Order: sequence, then C-alpha cells, then structure tokens
Amino acid sequence: MSETNAATAGRQALPLGDEIVGRINRLAAISEAPDNLTRIFLTPEHRGAADLILAWMVEAGMSAHLDAIGNVCGRYEGERPGLPCLMLGSHYDTVRDAGKWDGPLGLITAISCVADLNRRGRRFPFAIEVTGFADEEGVRFASTLLGSRAVAGTFNERVLASKDNAEISMREALVQFGLDPEHIGAAARARSELLAYVELHIEQGPVLEAKGLPVGVVSAIAGATRMAARVTGMAGHAGTVPMELRRDALAGAAELICKIEELCLTDGRGLVGTVGYIHATPGATNVIPGQVHFTIDLRAPTDVHRNRAVADIVRQIEAIAKRRKLDLRLDVTHENRTVPCAPWLKAQVAEAVAGEGYPVFELASGAGHDGMAMVDIADVAMVFVRCRGGISHHPDEDVELADADAGARVLLRLIENFRPRKAAG
Amino acid sequence: MSETNAATAGRQALPLGDEIVGRINRLAAISEAPDNLTRIFLTPEHRGAADLILAWMVEAGMSAHLDAIGNVCGRYEGERPGLPCLMLGSHYDTVRDAGKWDGPLGLITAISCVADLNRRGRRFPFAIEVTGFADEEGVRFASTLLGSRAVAGTFNERVLASKDNAEISMREALVQFGLDPEHIGAAARARSELLAYVELHIEQGPVLEAKGLPVGVVSAIAGATRMAARVTGMAGHAGTVPMELRRDALAGAAELICKIEELCLTDGRGLVGTVGYIHATPGATNVIPGQVHFTIDLRAPTDVHRNRAVADIVRQIEAIAKRRKLDLRLDVTHENRTVPCAPWLKAQVAEAVAGEGYPVFELASGAGHDGMAMVDIADVAMVFVRCRGGISHHPDEDVELADADAGARVLLRLIENFRPRKAAG
Repeated sequence: MSETNAATAGRQALPLGDEIVGRINRLAAISEAPDNLTRIFLTPEHRGAADLILAWMVEAGMSAHLDAIGNVCGRYEGERPGLPCLMLGSHYDTVRDAGKWDGPLGLITAISCVADLNRRGRRFPFAIEVTGFADEEGVRFASTLLGSRAVAGTFNERVLASKDNAEISMREALVQFGLDPEHIGAAARARSELLAYVELHIEQGPVLEAKGLPVGVVSAIAGATRMAARVTGMAGHAGTVPMELRRDALAGAAELICKIEELCLTDGRGLVGTVGYIHATPGATNVIPGQVHFTIDLRAPTDVHRNRAVADIVRQIEAIAKRRKLDLRLDVTHENRTVPCAPWLKAQVAEAVAGEGYPVFELASGAGHDGMAMVDIADVAMVFVRCRGGISHHPDEDVELADADAGARVLLRLIENFRPRKAAG
Repeated sequence: MSETNAATAGRQALPLGDEIVGRINRLAAISEAPDNLTRIFLTPEHRGAADLILAWMVEAGMSAHLDAIGNVCGRYEGERPGLPCLMLGSHYDTVRDAGKWDGPLGLITAISCVADLNRRGRRFPFAIEVTGFADEEGVRFASTLLGSRAVAGTFNERVLASKDNAEISMREALVQFGLDPEHIGAAARARSELLAYVELHIEQGPVLEAKGLPVGVVSAIAGATRMAARVTGMAGHAGTVPMELRRDALAGAAELICKIEELCLTDGRGLVGTVGYIHATPGATNVIPGQVHFTIDLRAPTDVHRNRAVADIVRQIEAIAKRRKLDLRLDVTHENRTVPCAPWLKAQVAEAVAGEGYPVFELASGAGHDGMAMVDIADVAMVFVRCRGGISHHPDEDVELADADAGARVLLRLIENFRPRKAAG
C-alpha cells in the first residue's frame, strides 16, 4: 500500500496534522523569552502552558487536572467508569532556546487522537489517559524526569530541597506554581491502574530521515553512563618548557577524546560517545594547562554492550594517561539502565505502523524519555516521528506536517486496536 | 675551576646572595592578597613596591626617580657625569598568584651589584642605570611591555584609553598612581644614551636544572605567534546522532591539538606549541559540541623557523578540519619577532660566566622579556638563573640562594669588565 493510499484507506478519522501543528505553534508562543522558546519547570510560562493543555484536554472530552508535581493529567473514560487505562503522554517543559516539537508533539498528538475518538463517540474496554509530564528535561534543578518519577512513585523527596540558579528551592517553586510540595506522593499511580504507557516523540536524530521513513518503532530507550574526567599534569610557561619535558593536561585530554571517538566509531553496533564539556586551567594562552576537566557520555542499545564499552574505554584512556605521566580521575556521575520496549506492546505499535502503510523499522532511542521512569509501573512502547536533519534542542528543530499527521494516524490506529497484555497474550 | 673555587677567587666583592634573597622576600610581602603574591600595574601595592625600590637605589648610591609610566629609574654616574650608560633592569609587576623571583631577581641583583661597586668606590668610563620596568606582564590592561616600550619610545598612546576589568582606564590609573598620562613621551630614552641593555632573569624553564648549571647565556628571546582557532561543526543530541553522521567540533579540535603537539614534538629544533585555552559550546554533557574556540601559541628560536612551523601547522590542521567537514577559522592575534642577543654583548656575558668558573651554556628564552622592547634603542643581552623545576608564574617558583649569588657574581663581573661596542669592536 502506498503512503497516499494509506492516508485515505477507509478511515472515518479527520486528518489531525493541521490541528496538531497549529497547537504546537500556540504552545511554542508561551516562552519566557520573546525571540526563542524557553519554558522551564514551575515558571509562570510553564503554568500558562499547563492551563492551555488542560483546556485542550477538556475540549477533547477528558476530565483534566494538575497533579501534585505539575503534570497535566487528562482522562477519557472507557465503556464504563474506572477502567484501567492506556496511558499516552510526553512532556511540556523545554530546554533553553528549544525546538517546539520535543515533548509537545507527543502530548498534543495524544490529545488530538482522543478528541477525534470523542467526536466519533468511540469508547473502549479501557480508559485513555494523557499525561503532560512537567519536567523531563531537568533544566531548572539538577534532576530529570521529575514528572514521570512522581507518577511512577519513584520521586526522591530529597530533591525538593535542591535549588535553582536563583537559589529558589523546588519546594518554594512548587508553592509559587500553586502546588503543595507535601503531597507529591499523591501523584503516584498504581501498576493496576495502567495497562501500558505509550509515548510518541520526535526522533531527535537523523536515522528515519536517512531511511526515508516518517515513523519508526522504538526498540529500547538506550541507557547512558556519564562520567566526569579530571586530567592533572603540570602547568608551565608556554615558551620555556621544552615539549619533551611537558605534562600538558590539555594535550593529554585531547588524545583521550580522540581515543573515545575512535572506539565508538569502530564499535559498529550503535555505541555513541560524546565529550560535551571541557575546561582547562589556568586557561591562559601562554600557560601550559595543568588540569583539564571534561565529561563523557556513553550510550549503547543494551546494558551489556554499554558496560563492556565503558570498561574498555576506561582501560584504554587510563593507559594513555599513564604513558603521559598524567593523573586521570574518572567518576561515574549518572547511570541509566536501558529500558527495552515491551515486546507485546511494540508488536502492536508495529501493527499500527504497517496498518498505515509504512515499512516497520525499529530503532533504539539514544535520548532519554519519560518511559525510563514509567517502566517502573507499566510496560512501555514508543513511536518515533521523523524530524528534519536530526536536529533537536535547537530552534531549527522541525517536523513536516505530513509526518505529524502520519504519527497521529499511527497512534490513533494503535489506540483503536489496543489489546491489553492479558488479552494479547 | 670548580664552583667552590670560583666563589672565593680573589674577589673583593661581598657575597650578595643573602642581601638579594632578603630583598626578594621584602618585596614579595607587598601584595594585594594576604596569602599570595599579586602586584598589578598602577595599584597601591605597585606604588608601595616602587617606593621601596627607589629607597634601595638611593641607598646603593644612585640618583633615583619614577618616570612617566611608573618605571623606577636609578642612575650611578661614571667617572664623570652624563656619560652614556650600561642599562640593567627587569620588571617589578607580577602575574596573579605569582612567584616572587620573576622580575624582582634581575632588578634587585642589579641594585645589589651597584651597591657593592659603590661601597668599593668603583666608577667606570660609563654610567650604570638600573630600571625597574612597571609593566612587563600585562595583567591589568590588554598590552604587555608597557614600561620598556615607554623607555624605548614605542609606547602606543592609544592604549591609554584601554580599561581594566573594573572599567578604570590606564589614563585614570596613571593619575591615581601620581603620574601625568600626558607626559608618557618623557620616559623615552635616546639610543645615544645607552651603550647596552643587560637583563638578569630566572629561566622560567627546566633546562638549566636539567644541565646542572646555575646560570646560562641567553642566545635570543624567541618570537611568538599566537592564533585564535574557531572550529565549527554541528551541535546535536549526544544520544541520537550516530557516530558516522556527527560533525563534532570538540572531537575535531582534539585531533587538531594532538597534531599541533605531534608537529612540535617531532621538530627537534626548539619549536614549542601550546593550546592553553579551550571552550566548547553549548558545553553540556549530553550535547555534541557545535563550536569550539581554542588558542595556539607557537615559539621557535628564529623567525624563519617559527614562520615555517606556523605555515606547516596551519596547512596540516586545515586538512584535518576539511576531512571532518568542520569549518576552521584561524586568526593571528599576536606576533613578536625573535630578538637575538647581540653577539658582542653575549660574548661579554659568556666571558663573565666563564670567569666565575661555570661552563658557558647558551639557551634561547622562550618567555618574552623587556629586551624585546629595549632592542629598539640598544643592543640586548640576558643572563638566566636556574629556577627549581622550571616552575614560574606560580607560588612554587624558587631559586637557590647559591644560584642567586652566582647570578649576582656574573652580573657584577660583567659590569666590571664591560667594554662598549666601539671599544669591544
């Protein structure tokens, strides 16, 4: 079946792309900055966005409320009240100077799907819930996935004391937003209430574009290991220390960074490694750096693969540091396990993709998503939508209208054909 | 002749090391910070140091005054007033968190030598002048060698408008110091007034220590080329962009830095290259850097050598950037020609070193010195004194008492045997 045929293949549903893109643009206008999109957890703009999303949920036929962490929660009842739900969702916070699709696309698409079902009076033997998670990006406080962790019951209450750059604690920020920080626990949901969690999201990478596909089936959310590296050599005068007597921390760090890149490039099985931050001290043009700090971010499609790669990289860069008489300290600062998408649920996503006439293509998500938290209370699957050039976390982030529509049709088909695990098993 | 014999080889002069080290410590106590040495151009501490040095000059039998840029100028007349002078000197400003020897050793040693000659009633067919240059390091304003440039008549009056970090202009700072910025020109000296300029300074490198020598004869003050490099690739998500699709500006910069180091290491003829500063943007752990800025400092014993090395490095790193599809922009931000020490004067320094019983060892100065400005009005030579571990611009900078004494004996012998160029030629 061609793509054109698929779009008109005997469906009563309205094309949803226009509505979705229109709402993406309306939401993107709610920003703390006039010239770029920045919508940070628990700010006035964040609250304004929540109110708009709540209104869209109500308009779509859902009951809707803000939960104790600021998640926007909509519920579309099933054939009778109180049924367990298929939960859909994504986040509505952004990074600074963000793109407008990362998060909102999945959230708005889910609302539009429900609105379409509601218009057609469709009810199912399960409820549908749509959750707009309040903080996935973790820009304001040094912690990510705050919204989905609260829902999963894994929110660490100690982070309430953490402060933003303006020395405002999360506790104070929640109060300013209109929430009661003493009741975060009330946001937690029970496993028995959820049949599954499915998230639609832009790919944030260039793979679907390279494959010529509007949508993809996510195989897993790749785990990540982040390390802080500190290289210590000996500072010295740039003019007076002969090359062979130097213990240059930056030249050493440069060799380590080249080695990390080389090992990831030659892996050939999806390992990616990034050094995103570097700082050399003293940092003057005419002084040999005595110390360098840099970060390492390593991701792979499985935990076994990632852990092996981390061990290999650590061993090899330690050997380089030793040869250069540099002290290398490595600290693991962050570690996320890989979250595989549930095979039974992933199969239903694949069915929906095929049902809309697209080749079924699986790819891992290199980025983290709320599913990483939601997996603690539900099986998880994800649908990826192609984005232009793989660009994300950037104003140039873009999705074609046709691809937004394709994603919506896949999600709608998934909902309409959804069988809970027991029924599916 | 052994070193021990040299120290007692029939000289009437007193050992000067104790006096010199005592004064080094007294001067080091004049700092803007209680726990480290920081004495910046035209600050109250800088003025306090100038007053102390003026007092030492007068005590040594010199007439002394501050010139229009804040240089401390002492003059010890020759056999009759008004004779051209042998000028000795070094600087009395420091970097931040400095060592106490860089600059003051040469200045204080020169004063102690004159004091010794004065005690012995020695007068010569030339005058001796000692200049404490006010700003060699260039910490406060974005320009170095301000003191010696004023003496050489090459001071650029436009820098009077430049401002420090507190938005104080050099013009205002001069007034606060008690000087008239309209009369900088009065500090300039005529070539006919100077027979030569000789500076004693710590090596600031590890070569003399490696050779086991307390003093060395400087062959040249190496020129330097400084460049600002900007590498532009494409920022992206650390998890979602496959390695082979990346244009990582930091991985690219790392390869460039490794190449610069390799080319300097394999040069074998004194080329040194340093990347002292680096900055990656956006600089987040989980974002592939889209742009990196770094500096390159290249020095070699001759201009021909340095210019060839610069061209070679530029060509090779441009090829790497091209292969990686990175945009590389290189701007030359600073260029100093090499200042060779005058052969006739260097020969007299070598004679004095040999006369004190030390092997004559020549080495280039990788660091810049006031001689780079003074060469515009006089032939220049330098004596290097060994410093511990080659450490400089650091509180650990250190000189052995015996080496300070050796330096003083060499300088004193040089003065006592000095023949102006015509007489020497």
